[in-house]
Amino acid sequence: MTRREEDLAKRLEFFREIDRLKSVYRRAWLSDGSRTETDGEHCWHVSVLALLFSDIIAEKGLDLLKIVKMLLIHDIVEADAGDTYAFDVEGNQDKKEREMKAADRLFGLLPEKQGAEWKNLWLEFDAEKTPEAVFAALLDKFHPFYQNWSSGGKGWILNKLDTARLHGRLKGLDSAYPELEKTVEAILREALRLGIVKE
Amino acid sequence: MTRREEDLAKRLEFFREIDRLKSVYRRAWLSDGSRTETDGEHCWHVSVLALLFSDIIAEKGLDLLKIVKMLLIHDIVEADAGDTYAFDVEGNQDKKEREMKAADRLFGLLPEKQGAEWKNLWLEFDAEKTPEAVFAALLDKFHPFYQNWSSGGKGWILNKLDTARLHGRLKGLDSAYPELEKTVEAILREALRLGIVKE
Repeated sequence: MTRREEDLAKRLEFFREIDRLKSVYRRAWLSDGSRTETDGEHCWHVSVLALLFSDIIAEKGLDLLKIVKMLLIHDIVEADAGDTYAFDVEGNQDKKEREMKAADRLFGLLPEKQGAEWKNLWLEFDAEKTPEAVFAALLDKFHPFYQNWSSGGKGWILNKLDTARLHGRLKGLDSAYPELEKTVEAILREALRLGIVKE
Repeated sequence: MTRREEDLAKRLEFFREIDRLKSVYRRAWLSDGSRTETDGEHCWHVSVLALLFSDIIAEKGLDLLKIVKMLLIHDIVEADAGDTYAFDVEGNQDKKEREMKAADRLFGLLPEKQGAEWKNLWLEFDAEKTPEAVFAALLDKFHPFYQNWSSGGKGWILNKLDTARLHGRLKGLDSAYPELEKTVEAILREALRLGIVKE
C-alpha cells in the first residue's frame, strides 16, 4: 500500500464512523414539528447559515472557509459522546471529559497530520476565543433558537424555558451581528406574548 | 426597515424553507441500516468528504471553498422538487424542469444579488463542466456508493443494481482521484463476490 492509499483508507474509515451523527438526535424540532433533527442535519443547516451571512463575515475580515470547516466538524465528537442539551446542568458536568476522549479516538482514526489539524480546529471552536470561533459558536447557538421558533416553540414549551436563559445563550450577538440580535429580541417578545416562553 | 434588516429577513425566510431538506429521504441507508438518510444529512456528510480530501483538491489547484459551497447547496432545489433516484429512468425525464422551477422559487427568496449567485453556483454544479463542479459531482456520486457499501449493500440489493451501472455513475474518477477509483473497483469486486450486486 502506498502512503496515499493508506491515507485514503484511514479517511474512509473515519468517514464511515461519523455516519453515526445521523443517529444522534438533538432537542430542536423540524419546522413541521414531525421529529427532532439529527446532528448531521444541524451541521448542514448551520453551515449554510454561515454561507448566507458571507458578506457579514467578509465585512468583519473573518475567514469564511475556516468558519464553515468548524461548523461542519464541530459535532463529530458527539458520534461517541452523544448530544448534551445546552440547558442540562448535570449532563454538562462531564461533557468536556467525554468529548475530549471522543476527539482523541475519532480524530485519531485520520492520517496523523490531518487528525491533529482537525482536533485543533475543534478545540479552537470549542474554546470560543478566536474571532472565527466566536462567530461560528454564535451561529451554532442561534440555529437551535431559530429552529425552535420555526417549529412553534415546541422545544421551549417542553423544556419550560424562559427568555433570560434563551437570550443568555446568545451573549455577544449584539456586537457580532446587530441586526440578528434585533431579530432575536423581536422573536423573544413575540414568544413571550404567545406564552411559549416564560418571563 | 434598513436594507441590511431586509436582507436578513429574506435570508432567514430562505433558511426556514430549506429546513424541508431534512424531510426528503434518499435511497441510501445509514451504516447501521436503521433507515435511509435525508438530504440534509447527505449534504453534511459529502461536504465533510471534500474537507477530508482537501490535499487532493489543493494538489489539483481547485478551490476548496467553492466545492464545499456547491456541496452544501446542491440539493436545495429538492426542498420543492423532491429527490430523484439516480437509477429512476422515468423520474429523471422531467427532473430538469422540476428542479429549475424550484431553483427559481427558492433562490428567489434571497436578496437579489445573493439569489442570483447561489442559483448560478447550483447551475454550475449541475452542468458538471468546470473543474470544481466535476470534482464536487464525483464526490456527490461517490457518497451514496460508499454509503450503500457501508450499510451492507441494502440499497443495491433492493434496487437490483449491477456493477456496470454502479461503476458507470463514477466515470472520470480514475483521473480525478486514482486511489479512490481503485477503492471503488475493490469494493465492486467484493460486492460481486458477496452477491450483493449483480454482474
